[in-house]
Parts: sequence; C-alpha cells; structure tokens
Amino acid sequence: MDLLKERILNEGKNLGGGILKVDSFINHQVDPTLMDACGAEFARMFANLGATRILTAEISGIAPALATAMHLKLQVVYARKTKPITMPDQVYLTVAPSHTKGRMVELIVSPEYLAKGERVLIIDDFLASGSTILGLVRLAKAAGADVVGIGALIEKSFEGGRAALSHLNLQVESLVCIGNMEDGQIIFCD
Amino acid sequence: MDLLKERILNEGKNLGGGILKVDSFINHQVDPTLMDACGAEFARMFANLGATRILTAEISGIAPALATAMHLKLQVVYARKTKPITMPDQVYLTVAPSHTKGRMVELIVSPEYLAKGERVLIIDDFLASGSTILGLVRLAKAAGADVVGIGALIEKSFEGGRAALSHLNLQVESLVCIGNMEDGQIIFCD
Repeated sequence: MDLLKERILNEGKNLGGGILKVDSFINHQVDPTLMDACGAEFARMFANLGATRILTAEISGIAPALATAMHLKLQVVYARKTKPITMPDQVYLTVAPSHTKGRMVELIVSPEYLAKGERVLIIDDFLASGSTILGLVRLAKAAGADVVGIGALIEKSFEGGRAALSHLNLQVESLVCIGNMEDGQIIFCD
Repeated sequence: MDLLKERILNEGKNLGGGILKVDSFINHQVDPTLMDACGAEFARMFANLGATRILTAEISGIAPALATAMHLKLQVVYARKTKPITMPDQVYLTVAPSHTKGRMVELIVSPEYLAKGERVLIIDDFLASGSTILGLVRLAKAAGADVVGIGALIEKSFEGGRAALSHLNLQVESLVCIGNMEDGQIIFCD
C-alpha cells in the first residue's frame, strides 16, 4: 500500500535490532486519515471471508482494528494485557513473548465477547515473529471460534512471522512488507 | 446523546463502588458504528475551537479520540503508561491516580508530538474524578501547548471531575452524564 510505504520512508526510523519506529503515525501519534485508508484496504482484502468479529491486542492494534471495523461494520474485541476489575473471573488467557518489551505479556479476552462459532478476523499493527498473532489465534480457538484471516499494517518478513502462521492455512495480508533492516536500512520486500 | 444512553441502559452494568462496566461497547469490545457517531458528535461540539491536535490516554481513550480525529482530520496523540523503547529519553511525564487500577499510573508523551503553540483537544472515555484529564492538561502545559477543550463519552458527575476542571475555564463536554449509581442504579443527570 503506497500511502503507508511513503510514510515509512519519510518518517519511519530504523532503531537497530529490527525495531522500526513508526511513532509519528501509528504507535503514539496516530494519523486518522492514513488509518482510515488502511482500514478500507483491509476491508477490501477481507470482504469475502464472512468474518463476524475483529480481534486485536491492546495497545497499538486498537487503531488499525477499529478503522477496519468501521468499514466492515463488525464489533472489535481487543485482548487486554492486564485484567481489569470489570472482567469476570473466568477468562481466556494466554501468554506471548513481546519483542519490544523483552518479556512475556498476557493476552486476556472475556468469554462474553468471543463465542463458539464466531468467524474471527485478526488485525494488528505488526507481523514480526508472529507470536502476538499466534496468541490471539489460541484465544480464539479456546473460545471455539474460527480464525478466518489475519492482517497486519507492517510485516517484517525477516522475523519469520508468515512462516510461523503458515500451518493455519489462512489468508495472511500485510499492507507493507519490509524485507531487510540491516545496517540502518529499510528495504521493502518487493 | 441518546444512542450512547440507550447502550448504557441496555448493556451497562453497575458493579458498585462507582464502577460502570461498559466492556461490551467501549472498553474491551468496541462498537465501531457507535464510536463513529460519538466521534461525529464531539467533532460537532468542538468544531469552532481551532484545535490542532487531539490528546488522550491509552488504553480506552484511543477509540473515542481516533473516531473524533477522523471527523476533525486532526492527528491524535495517546499518552503512554509505560515508556516504549522507541521513545526518546527526554519525555513529558506526569502521574495520575487510576480509579479502576487503584494505584498511580504514569502518563508519558514524547516532545516530538506535542509542541509549543499547539491547540489541544482532550478526549477520553470517562470523566470521573478528572485526575487522568488533569494529568493530560499538565502534559500539554509542560509542552507549552494550550488545552482548548475537553470531551468525555461518559461523565460520572457524582465523582466531581467537572468541578476539578472548572478552574481551567474551558469547554467541557460529555455525551452522557450519570448522576447517581447508588444501590445498583444507573441514574442519568437530566
């Protein structure tokens, strides 16, 4: 997706260690016009899956998932990383390693909002190692729901996430793919 | 705002201690159509303030702030509660008590995205004691920015937030106001 690619070229910063800083339009400051365009693109890509719900993980998945949900007219559920007091005692919980946090994080969804038979579309900001998305897949399966598609704004193909998801045999889409970040560069896959 | 009021009446749960559970449409599951309507309403209310940026706090402020930003075509910045590795060492940081977490939380904004002279519109999910919003006001002031308006989806007037903000002499708007939650009730202000 050219719009997102341009923003990464103009504003993205390669901080080393595979960390891409996109704080000025995705992760701290959010550009609503760009995010709406990304949501529209995901909605187009996943229009024919019969998804009934979108699942993402707080914090930075919320904006792209909500933008997509506005176009597909689907409810969004974001997995919480700490259990709020408003959540029932019995929850779906899994743990996943966080690349940027350097530790395991919990992903928690209330059974109230993820039910058997749902067709779940997973949307997140990054597809890197795939560990967060695999955590969301486990939550959906625990609920008896089917994951029908996976979308990420930015894929870092050199971290192997797409291969880690391949056994699921699902449509996996990224709007921009980065193939190499060595030596301070940002090289796209194409 | 009738749409939001109806959802609170139908799905909101008074958990006692002033805690209103709105997990099914705001805080865990998000209804994108409702959120878009709330954003449109905030955009209408604050259309004439000349705001240049929207400021909110992660996590549950992101959805209403983004929906508002889409209508006003303004960048959104969400204050982080933990400093990510992509953020510079020098930041604006304040602490505010969290009602639902029962402890102090940090609110952190990068100087990259909040600058002197900005006209800041603050949007959040709840106006309760006002402590989170006052924290956001302190961050804006630290940056030399002016806060020009404050909007919350749901005000709990019995927690005194509006009074706590009154010295700012700003337009403060809530889409729904709850005046009493004693004895398991949810009584609106009107």
